[in-house]
Amino acid sequence: MTNVRENIYEPFTEQSVLVYLEQKGLITDRREVTCQEVGDGNLNYVFIVKDLQTDKSLVVKQALPYAKVVGESWPLSLDRARIERQALQEAAKRVPELVPQVFDYDDDYAVTVMEDLSDHVILRKGLLDGNIYPNIAADIGTYLAENLFHASDEALGPVEKKKLARQFVNPDLCDITEKLVFTDPYYNAESNSYPDNLQESVESLWHDDRLIFEVAKLKKQFLTEGETLLHGDLHTGSVFVTETSTKVIDPEFAFYGPAGFDIGAFIANLTLNYIAQQERADDSRRHEISAYLLETIEQTWAVFEERYRTLLLEKGFDDRQRTEQYADYVIHKIWQDTLGFAGCKTIRRIIGLAHVEDIDGIENAAGRLQAQQRAIETGRSLIFNRSVWRSPKSLTAYLKGLEK
Amino acid sequence: MTNVRENIYEPFTEQSVLVYLEQKGLITDRREVTCQEVGDGNLNYVFIVKDLQTDKSLVVKQALPYAKVVGESWPLSLDRARIERQALQEAAKRVPELVPQVFDYDDDYAVTVMEDLSDHVILRKGLLDGNIYPNIAADIGTYLAENLFHASDEALGPVEKKKLARQFVNPDLCDITEKLVFTDPYYNAESNSYPDNLQESVESLWHDDRLIFEVAKLKKQFLTEGETLLHGDLHTGSVFVTETSTKVIDPEFAFYGPAGFDIGAFIANLTLNYIAQQERADDSRRHEISAYLLETIEQTWAVFEERYRTLLLEKGFDDRQRTEQYADYVIHKIWQDTLGFAGCKTIRRIIGLAHVEDIDGIENAAGRLQAQQRAIETGRSLIFNRSVWRSPKSLTAYLKGLEK
Repeated sequence: MTNVRENIYEPFTEQSVLVYLEQKGLITDRREVTCQEVGDGNLNYVFIVKDLQTDKSLVVKQALPYAKVVGESWPLSLDRARIERQALQEAAKRVPELVPQVFDYDDDYAVTVMEDLSDHVILRKGLLDGNIYPNIAADIGTYLAENLFHASDEALGPVEKKKLARQFVNPDLCDITEKLVFTDPYYNAESNSYPDNLQESVESLWHDDRLIFEVAKLKKQFLTEGETLLHGDLHTGSVFVTETSTKVIDPEFAFYGPAGFDIGAFIANLTLNYIAQQERADDSRRHEISAYLLETIEQTWAVFEERYRTLLLEKGFDDRQRTEQYADYVIHKIWQDTLGFAGCKTIRRIIGLAHVEDIDGIENAAGRLQAQQRAIETGRSLIFNRSVWRSPKSLTAYLKGLEK
Repeated sequence: MTNVRENIYEPFTEQSVLVYLEQKGLITDRREVTCQEVGDGNLNYVFIVKDLQTDKSLVVKQALPYAKVVGESWPLSLDRARIERQALQEAAKRVPELVPQVFDYDDDYAVTVMEDLSDHVILRKGLLDGNIYPNIAADIGTYLAENLFHASDEALGPVEKKKLARQFVNPDLCDITEKLVFTDPYYNAESNSYPDNLQESVESLWHDDRLIFEVAKLKKQFLTEGETLLHGDLHTGSVFVTETSTKVIDPEFAFYGPAGFDIGAFIANLTLNYIAQQERADDSRRHEISAYLLETIEQTWAVFEERYRTLLLEKGFDDRQRTEQYADYVIHKIWQDTLGFAGCKTIRRIIGLAHVEDIDGIENAAGRLQAQQRAIETGRSLIFNRSVWRSPKSLTAYLKGLEK
């Protein structure tokens, strides 16, 4: 593990980043480029640097030593820049077409220089604009299967897996997830954030001891089950898309955890979009959009499952892992975990800190409240039914029942 | 993590270790001490150094860069000396009376200088001599509860736990366990070792697909569930005893794994001793010894369970963990895992590399074969019944049925 030398690190400005890039030989003349900081500044700076003569561009992402996610600043290890960069490099070994290319990095400055994806849009935004991306299920299903398999004990064998896992111990960022996903939404925590008219629904959740116990079990799994290298924050805001291209970005929450966590995060965010679309979509397009989202949930899992099974049966590290019985067992565990984590991820976006625009942006107040309540109930159902729903059809049938 | 600087390291001799101790100020005059190497030389040197004038003594344990456990030598990281020493130091924070005191260490030489326990005997040997140690259950139950709890997420919180876990990534030694406990006994592996007349029993095990699948699940748990800091090799050869003192030694296999693994290892070795005693003990004492061993199995778990529950309810990191319902859940999982791992640990000592003197030392050939077959069957029962047997009474009732 490389640790940032704090005495070298300093946050760049739009000027100083160009001096740095020139010194590194990544641009030839800083007077011939434009530079713009486009990050939201909560956790990182993101500079887009464009060569005026060649029209080529690149992105410089620099971690900041704090997060502005709880009103005041929350100190965060700069080492997460290394983790994010190494996670991108791991993914590039399996699915180079599905992640931004890393051109250079510097752990002392907590900096990664990578491909500029300004021609892409964030999937969440694209979905909210009513767009349909036909490749998403196949691309994300493939991304999940390739990455979740190839970092596991079953792919690497236990020795190499432990050596890789040691590089992805990520206490600070896991702590954010542990608090915001598994802890705070389930009691009257200061970090929570929800409208007054949701108070009754929220309190009923806080008194649901059966639910809270199930969430405690899922939290224990998140804390202890180091199955594989996760992206760690795979919502629809971590996916860049065009009509023909999908890129998974921002794996700074990467760590060794339960495989179902990433799939659950993605499915939860499609679910939230589906629930929101019942209020947002034009009447003329609601049915089409709803059908697309349900199809995407089903197909993401189907592509994941088929690819994962094939990889395990073909490349499983030991004989006993290359059997249909073992593959069924592992995949069924991942499926149950996917549902449980999807439930937690759905609920946190309504009650906890950091909401999603899908729901919060519903203009009609009654519709918004309806969507919020439905999201909470859907989360609850995902958690309770995780050992009952045998396939994505169960989830999509449930969601179909919410269609306007 | 400190890594040994290989250019400094060299294996000590009975002479050079004294020069080293003198330089370190741990002895005053090397001409006034005796020094004897007493290790079995398979993995480590163990020097006992005694001051002739004060009669005080100490032990110098030095890791060797290989293990002679598979006929030829198996390269092993010297970093395990640091892991063993830090595991002893962690245990000393909770139960200083149950571990040897560490006086000094030097990671460059892979050396730990510690309390000499020559007045103790190895528990396995003591039990084979027909001795009864009334404190063992309380001491080991306490050792297990205090250590397994205090290194867990529930005690440390997720951030501190991850920081501690990072220090105990132990690929080389875990690999030995993975191979010898979970893999090799279940197929015709070169490392296996069993007498010809056991061939039929062993082959029936290799064809027991249901058993092999259960073992694959337990192996997956061993590989992925980083619940707490384990001793990692807690058999009766890792416990030093006198009438009144218990010391747990040799935690070089320490790593973050499932809590039930340590308890299972200890119970498996009591079980093997129990099975062996049916053939070994004098008729006049067999009943007494059998009753003592069953009582020790039951009480070890009872002491562990009560202490662990109390610690969790009093010190659990978050509110949701300090509930009877969560405690029941966690303890029940540990219990199931204990049985499963005990089963694997029992079988490997009959079929795999590295047997136990308890069984191998039975002089009567028919009795030895009987004990070997019973041990295999008991292991199988432990694995299959791990979600059925609700308390140690189920196991001891089963064992009682094997009494002569």
